[in-house]
Amino acid sequence: MTPPPPPSFLTSLKDLLGPKGWSDDPDRLAEAATPWRGTYRGETPLIARPAATAEAAALVKLCAQHRVAITPQGGNTGLVDGGTPHGEICVSMTRMTALRETDPFNNSLTIEAGATLVAAQQAAEAAGRLFPLSLGSEGTATIGGLISTNAGGVAVLRYGMMRDLILGLEVVLPSGEVWDGLSGLRKNNTGYDLKHLFAGAEGTLGLITAATLKLFPRVQAASAWVICASADDVVSLLAAVQGKAGDSVTSFEMIPANAVEMVITDIPSTRDPMPSNAPWRVLIEISQPTEDHARALLESALGAAAEEGLIQDAVIAASETQSRSFWHIRESIPLSKRAYGTALNQDIAVPVSRIPAFITACNAAVRAVLPPADFVIFGHVGDGNLHYSVVEPAGAAAPQLKASEAAITRTIFDTVMAHGGSISAEHGVGRLKRDELARLRPRAATDTMRAIKQALDPLNIMNPGRVVSV
Amino acid sequence: MTPPPPPSFLTSLKDLLGPKGWSDDPDRLAEAATPWRGTYRGETPLIARPAATAEAAALVKLCAQHRVAITPQGGNTGLVDGGTPHGEICVSMTRMTALRETDPFNNSLTIEAGATLVAAQQAAEAAGRLFPLSLGSEGTATIGGLISTNAGGVAVLRYGMMRDLILGLEVVLPSGEVWDGLSGLRKNNTGYDLKHLFAGAEGTLGLITAATLKLFPRVQAASAWVICASADDVVSLLAAVQGKAGDSVTSFEMIPANAVEMVITDIPSTRDPMPSNAPWRVLIEISQPTEDHARALLESALGAAAEEGLIQDAVIAASETQSRSFWHIRESIPLSKRAYGTALNQDIAVPVSRIPAFITACNAAVRAVLPPADFVIFGHVGDGNLHYSVVEPAGAAAPQLKASEAAITRTIFDTVMAHGGSISAEHGVGRLKRDELARLRPRAATDTMRAIKQALDPLNIMNPGRVVSV
Repeated sequence: MTPPPPPSFLTSLKDLLGPKGWSDDPDRLAEAATPWRGTYRGETPLIARPAATAEAAALVKLCAQHRVAITPQGGNTGLVDGGTPHGEICVSMTRMTALRETDPFNNSLTIEAGATLVAAQQAAEAAGRLFPLSLGSEGTATIGGLISTNAGGVAVLRYGMMRDLILGLEVVLPSGEVWDGLSGLRKNNTGYDLKHLFAGAEGTLGLITAATLKLFPRVQAASAWVICASADDVVSLLAAVQGKAGDSVTSFEMIPANAVEMVITDIPSTRDPMPSNAPWRVLIEISQPTEDHARALLESALGAAAEEGLIQDAVIAASETQSRSFWHIRESIPLSKRAYGTALNQDIAVPVSRIPAFITACNAAVRAVLPPADFVIFGHVGDGNLHYSVVEPAGAAAPQLKASEAAITRTIFDTVMAHGGSISAEHGVGRLKRDELARLRPRAATDTMRAIKQALDPLNIMNPGRVVSV
Repeated sequence: MTPPPPPSFLTSLKDLLGPKGWSDDPDRLAEAATPWRGTYRGETPLIARPAATAEAAALVKLCAQHRVAITPQGGNTGLVDGGTPHGEICVSMTRMTALRETDPFNNSLTIEAGATLVAAQQAAEAAGRLFPLSLGSEGTATIGGLISTNAGGVAVLRYGMMRDLILGLEVVLPSGEVWDGLSGLRKNNTGYDLKHLFAGAEGTLGLITAATLKLFPRVQAASAWVICASADDVVSLLAAVQGKAGDSVTSFEMIPANAVEMVITDIPSTRDPMPSNAPWRVLIEISQPTEDHARALLESALGAAAEEGLIQDAVIAASETQSRSFWHIRESIPLSKRAYGTALNQDIAVPVSRIPAFITACNAAVRAVLPPADFVIFGHVGDGNLHYSVVEPAGAAAPQLKASEAAITRTIFDTVMAHGGSISAEHGVGRLKRDELARLRPRAATDTMRAIKQALDPLNIMNPGRVVSV
């Protein structure tokens, strides 16, 4: 826990920000210190809410002068204890939401860090363009937070992660100086790529105040719900579909039979699109300039896959409504899993080709620790990103999952590493995975990260203790 | 100029590398110290040619112990005096060319830094996949050099720059330690993104020895040669074509009438595909899983653009041969320009939307310095990247270009900056643009780059004096 700043500092900070720019209301402080999933609780003496970049810069400068640490916070939807203050000043970006510029001919827009993802998507749509990042918390998650955590989501296969969707950044550096790196340029080889350093740094190297985002031509989608007999078939299916439809395959989501069962039990008005005893479903989406062509490609790809024996059955959505019902099942899995009972969740990635071997090996390794373990494994196959959960029904006769948590987590991580994988695919490091990553990452990488942190934030005031300890 | 290392050091280095691992033959030294375009001349006491990563690591460790500087060199095709030694040991990567792994189901391959771009393209093709980076020097340029300079080329619009095409890197750090960051993962949020720091660093932060590259499904292309009446129409045409064909538009190259004239005069067996008095041509390529669909989209896009009055005329290539003849003209421009006379060449970028205003403003500003100036301006419109050349015929009555070079360069750079642009779009910084960029870049950016360089290479032995001075 970061020690509390002196009262005189807090007075200066309040003066700087003005009455609308801060809060020390106990309820608001508690809210800011409690993350979305509420599994732990932090603490903060003050929420600072700068209204403009210059104010954010003055705030950081004051903190640097007094060596007071800050934790930047966006929508507070993070999952790795990265944006929850633990004694630091909480810098909430929620007042900085302006859409600064839209440039459709350049396929770009510039928006402030506190704007939500939905706001950015809507601004793109108003300009006749697409901002493709999409994920469950998009109505709350902010642009600054999404960049700082390099968020993923369901369209990474085609469009990349959040870092791939930024053209420029405006950042308050740990000294309080502003780096105006906003830019609509697609090519700019003028030195080290600083935007890629701040993206994914979880606020430890600077405070992102605005970003220029890449826009894309709008597309129309066709989607299918496919039944597969094995994880091997799922991975081969991806290659077969890409063979026919190229990279117009925008989503390729793997869903286990038991997750569908949980969802239809738990969520009213959902139904299984195609009941089957086979273990896997795949939700495929293909995007093209016209829906007709997307559908034609999808039909031809599924026809070829059926001939190769890779699919048991498939249904192509006949309408937007049916397509949404497929996605509704996919997006309800995390919630239904929580209704089902206790779960230990990991966000991991392995090379796509190693998904089947990883699932087999990891399930066996976990069962060696906890024989009655059950699994819900779903995710973004095209990115090799699996949400791997070990589950135990709420009414289990002799609950054992909680007691074995540390051993199971270690088992999963070691199996991931043995398959050339990552123990944090899209959620980030925060405080939660910092030490485990220091153990698993090559030492040369951790040392290099530490050297960068020390060089850019010598006072260690920017979200200290997240990503790497120094 | 870096001072020469002591003879005893050179003896140790030769012992370390073995007889095949070095050369001090004067012809070879001269060759290594002369860049492709031969406009200046460097110097090196020794060419070191490590055969494996461990050898490269031992080499760098020895250099660190003796504080001897190195300049990594790939195909020596750079254009900014980044890979030419000026007294440093020249570390040529041309012996490290192994294809270490191909993983088609993961859409990735791992290859050593000294392999050429063509070798990587061919390895991808052998695996039934596409490696999309493509540029003029692809038979000579190496993977390590392309990553270190973050190369661009003609498919950036759809696939991004070189940095966007790497999944992982293996790098010898300035201490001689190896960071094994090779990885086939598409999602890996486990700390600062080091690969994006080494990419584009021009060898100043470490020596890249191998890379895991992203592969894509293969595509088929249709291309068209289009006549436009103004730069405004060219930019509007891009938006119109993307409106119909989405991001299956893989290339969109702007070519001026005078460049076509130079090429058909200079290069035997070329002919103007569609003579016209209009000032601009656009070479458009659309890629899709099937050629039929690429062609159908191209036809529909051009039809819509014609209705909007954006194009004067257009021809869609009827065959692969005709398509190649279009590209041959585009790719011959740099060579023909040299045959034509003296040229001052700049590789710049502006936001796509500002291309027309930039061209008007910059031509006027240059003519204010040199009234008889003529221009050849071509480039990748979708990336906002123009190759902007001021030209003077070889037989000019009173040649003035050379004498005005410094003033014209300054004028171009200032006009680029006034249009929110970059003075180095895809060629990089090297020694050539280091000081100009220190003048033009925000000070906060240069300071941050310097801090990173000092933190990662405290002895300043990795390609010193390129990118930033410390």
